[in-house]
Amino acid sequence: MLLSKLVGERTKNGPADATAASHSLLIRAGFIKLVSNGIWSLSMPAKRIAQKIEGIIREEMNAIDGQEVSFPVVMPKDIWAESGRYFSIGEEMVRFKDRGGRDMVLGMTHEEAAVQFSRDAVNSYQQLPFMIYQFQTKFRDEARCRGGLIRVREFTMKDAYSFHNDMDDLKSYYEKAYKAYENIFRRIGMKKVVAVKSDSGMMGGSISHEFMLLTDIGEDTIVLCPECGYKANMEVATTVRKPLRDEVSEKIEEIFTGDSHDIDSVAQLLKKDKNKTVKAVCYFLKGTEKVVVCFVRGDLEVNESKLTKILMSQIVPADITGSDVLHAGNIGCYGLKKDNLAGVYYDESLRSTNNMVAGANKDGYHITGLDFDRDMPGIEFVDIAKVCEGDVCPVCGKPLALENGIEVGNIFQLGTKYTKAMNMTVLGKDGTAFYPIMGCYGIGIGRALASVAEESHDEKGLIWPMSICPWHVYLCGLRLDDEQVKETSDKLYSELTKAGVEVLFDDRNASAGVKFSDCDLIGIPIRIVVSPRGLAQGTVEVQTRDKKICENVAINDVTSFVNKIIAEAMNQLK
Amino acid sequence: MLLSKLVGERTKNGPADATAASHSLLIRAGFIKLVSNGIWSLSMPAKRIAQKIEGIIREEMNAIDGQEVSFPVVMPKDIWAESGRYFSIGEEMVRFKDRGGRDMVLGMTHEEAAVQFSRDAVNSYQQLPFMIYQFQTKFRDEARCRGGLIRVREFTMKDAYSFHNDMDDLKSYYEKAYKAYENIFRRIGMKKVVAVKSDSGMMGGSISHEFMLLTDIGEDTIVLCPECGYKANMEVATTVRKPLRDEVSEKIEEIFTGDSHDIDSVAQLLKKDKNKTVKAVCYFLKGTEKVVVCFVRGDLEVNESKLTKILMSQIVPADITGSDVLHAGNIGCYGLKKDNLAGVYYDESLRSTNNMVAGANKDGYHITGLDFDRDMPGIEFVDIAKVCEGDVCPVCGKPLALENGIEVGNIFQLGTKYTKAMNMTVLGKDGTAFYPIMGCYGIGIGRALASVAEESHDEKGLIWPMSICPWHVYLCGLRLDDEQVKETSDKLYSELTKAGVEVLFDDRNASAGVKFSDCDLIGIPIRIVVSPRGLAQGTVEVQTRDKKICENVAINDVTSFVNKIIAEAMNQLK
Repeated sequence: MLLSKLVGERTKNGPADATAASHSLLIRAGFIKLVSNGIWSLSMPAKRIAQKIEGIIREEMNAIDGQEVSFPVVMPKDIWAESGRYFSIGEEMVRFKDRGGRDMVLGMTHEEAAVQFSRDAVNSYQQLPFMIYQFQTKFRDEARCRGGLIRVREFTMKDAYSFHNDMDDLKSYYEKAYKAYENIFRRIGMKKVVAVKSDSGMMGGSISHEFMLLTDIGEDTIVLCPECGYKANMEVATTVRKPLRDEVSEKIEEIFTGDSHDIDSVAQLLKKDKNKTVKAVCYFLKGTEKVVVCFVRGDLEVNESKLTKILMSQIVPADITGSDVLHAGNIGCYGLKKDNLAGVYYDESLRSTNNMVAGANKDGYHITGLDFDRDMPGIEFVDIAKVCEGDVCPVCGKPLALENGIEVGNIFQLGTKYTKAMNMTVLGKDGTAFYPIMGCYGIGIGRALASVAEESHDEKGLIWPMSICPWHVYLCGLRLDDEQVKETSDKLYSELTKAGVEVLFDDRNASAGVKFSDCDLIGIPIRIVVSPRGLAQGTVEVQTRDKKICENVAINDVTSFVNKIIAEAMNQLK
Repeated sequence: MLLSKLVGERTKNGPADATAASHSLLIRAGFIKLVSNGIWSLSMPAKRIAQKIEGIIREEMNAIDGQEVSFPVVMPKDIWAESGRYFSIGEEMVRFKDRGGRDMVLGMTHEEAAVQFSRDAVNSYQQLPFMIYQFQTKFRDEARCRGGLIRVREFTMKDAYSFHNDMDDLKSYYEKAYKAYENIFRRIGMKKVVAVKSDSGMMGGSISHEFMLLTDIGEDTIVLCPECGYKANMEVATTVRKPLRDEVSEKIEEIFTGDSHDIDSVAQLLKKDKNKTVKAVCYFLKGTEKVVVCFVRGDLEVNESKLTKILMSQIVPADITGSDVLHAGNIGCYGLKKDNLAGVYYDESLRSTNNMVAGANKDGYHITGLDFDRDMPGIEFVDIAKVCEGDVCPVCGKPLALENGIEVGNIFQLGTKYTKAMNMTVLGKDGTAFYPIMGCYGIGIGRALASVAEESHDEKGLIWPMSICPWHVYLCGLRLDDEQVKETSDKLYSELTKAGVEVLFDDRNASAGVKFSDCDLIGIPIRIVVSPRGLAQGTVEVQTRDKKICENVAINDVTSFVNKIIAEAMNQLK
């Protein structure tokens, strides 16, 4: 490829609002072009990287007996109504009417399509297990796109669906998929990836794992135990908290706290630690005005994912202004009238605590001296609090660490949710029909590309791993008006290309500075510089992006030298 | 691949409403699965064929310096408003509002996206010419889907866009693209493809060609001259008609024709040839009640594409019931009151004709003896009639033939329509800004697949050309309960696969009949039968789908024998 014809503007500065390095660098290198919020075009180098990532994923999916298929982007309402998701998914799903007035959706994922595709064709347990997968465009109308290709609305996803006779078979296949995922991330050159147990959310299964790239710009929080290796998404992470119980229990007293309505000011006013206070948080069950009240220790936060799971309902923060029962800023668990509430939940962190400060359910007043054992007998405690840095590991008891991460892949044990809802049955060995058990396995291609960029760059630009680089070699002719430089460059371009080396030839009449900085920005692993000075010695300069190799190589040896660098780099990514 | 696990139901009967053989066979072979009207899922074999077609197209596009990129499926209204197509395209374009209330569309094609992608990045004539292309999902809300994958709503298309400094450069690139298209169709094994000049329709350019596969089920009509090779789409085909002028002109007489309101009955009543009558056809300008009246010779039909081009407006058939001026069935060109009409058009076929029958513009009456030279002086004639079988070739004067065809590809000289509308300028050599000249080039992947199937099948099933076959070999173990058969089959499966031969291994416990008929139905080029009888001789049977080769081959020679068949077949498709 000739750089002079490559479409994609290279610029000095990225967008002012870019918070992710990958966002800024992919734009600066001319790899991506914004079309609309969360919708991008990819230029040739980005497309080539995406194709190489897809190629690696394809090999790994085929290695675990995947059948590559294709489901449509536009689907009819009916199959999404069968699964129930037409109704349960919110505004993220695009719905429209076709010219015939029929309700259609844009696919956010393809469980429904996979079952619709398989249910007539597969009738016998003998046809199981099988796995079908595709690379297909998804559209999710995200409210909050960010980070360039990190969180977008339209993206290409590899989504795979496996079907099994029983749970054991799913589990053993799930293990294989897990390993395939590890292979994929290793092979595309992503390093700090960890698999964490996760909440399966709208997928609706039981066991699932998210593969997270640990990076400061990640918007997911992962709870890690550096000691025993425990890993979990914040949404499902647990800890063990010892009850903060003083030896002597004071008695309950009502105290005027005036305008002190939040934990900080109440704790300060009463000279108490925040962990000796009780925090009240109110939610509406989504779409209703039914209020749920949650109580957690004052130094903790409610984990809404855990709460949602317990409630089996979506929630939204409640505005309780005007309520007779709930006095904003003074809500307390002691003496609370529960008649009109949809539920009251007490977090485990409050179990057996005493001498606690809580709202008095009366404007301007709190109580002190609350003893949960003495004053709140018989209540049940549930785990609805977020884990904090330093909390105790539920496995080994050592302190937990929190890290940020980007979800780069996920795998789910779906169970029979979709086969049951969509009535896909097969005949078992004994002649009775059963619902196949499903697993599903996703990787977003664009996000994977951006995540590698996020992990692998420096102040000069992108640094692509050899396995997914847009081209292996950046061929840089300095002073192309010099006939010998031109001739040698042309010769190397043709020779390398013939040898299967992918070359981006900077054929512009530009300065060395411009060429070198573009080379670094685009992030091609190997740079070859053809210059009059080198040619005087019969050599060209071969340098790797990471500067580990920088040698003057005789012109006739260049192809074998370069091929060796490529082979070694690929070997390390095996 | 093991056939026992391949998802895709093979059935005896295709859908009752299938009119295209490809439609029926692709369903019967389990290649495609209907999801909604005009929306299909592809199973593994279909996906493999599609990928091989894409691979061939990719090679040909790269060979003419194409840069593979990716534009989104979902696009914002704004760029389609810039080009004007947001308003000019009808219900075929899906429009919806995103969660933020912004107007979005599903891409039917990507000229707008290509210009939006390039206009900031390309600033100088030195960056031209370039061509960018992609394989991307398109959605066109077709009112009339048909023929399985032949005419659908959702499909993958290779669409390419080239940008040039001047018309000469576009023309020379257009020639290259034309040749690349010929290469593509030859290499994917499509035989009866002809390139015809066509109406560029909504693309809005000047010169364009459609690549048509000639087949009876084609819904396009192509006008061909067997003598000189003239080829044109019916929409733009022309002919030369000699005026049907008698020596003596009769005088005009009004005749009572009662209920005879159509050409057939009037001609019969008055004992005239239809070509001595004048046919009137009325249209509304689309979206209005403005009437356009067209007159053509009674034996001809109005070509609405030609008319649309002349009017520069869409048209719909007009219902003129209740009009004071236009008497349905008796409309005539002589004495017609034109005051409230949007236009009156006379076809070339009427030029200098005499003794013609026409409506008298009076219920129940026609006139005879109309002489266009004498009675309609000064009118202009335009070409708005369809060409008929046997009409005279506009180039060589020999009789034209009509054939049906499926459009399998198209190429357009777009000109500056989009660069101008979307204000993409680059600086020329002399420092003045100009609008680059565009070409665009499309091929639908699914339609190409179906078209090959349409051309290449027999009563037993599909027959895939070697270059795009889903697998090269159908390995058929007969009596797999026989240990030697099982062992040899397994050995061949592994040996062939290692040698790069793609094998579908029928590992089922099924009869020879079932296996052979599935093999024929799926259409794999080479069948290998491992049977106890053959093994007794140390051989297996190797047969090609077209029966041209059928040999018993020693087991150790199978791989080289098969590789030779593949190489020879591929050689023929070069």
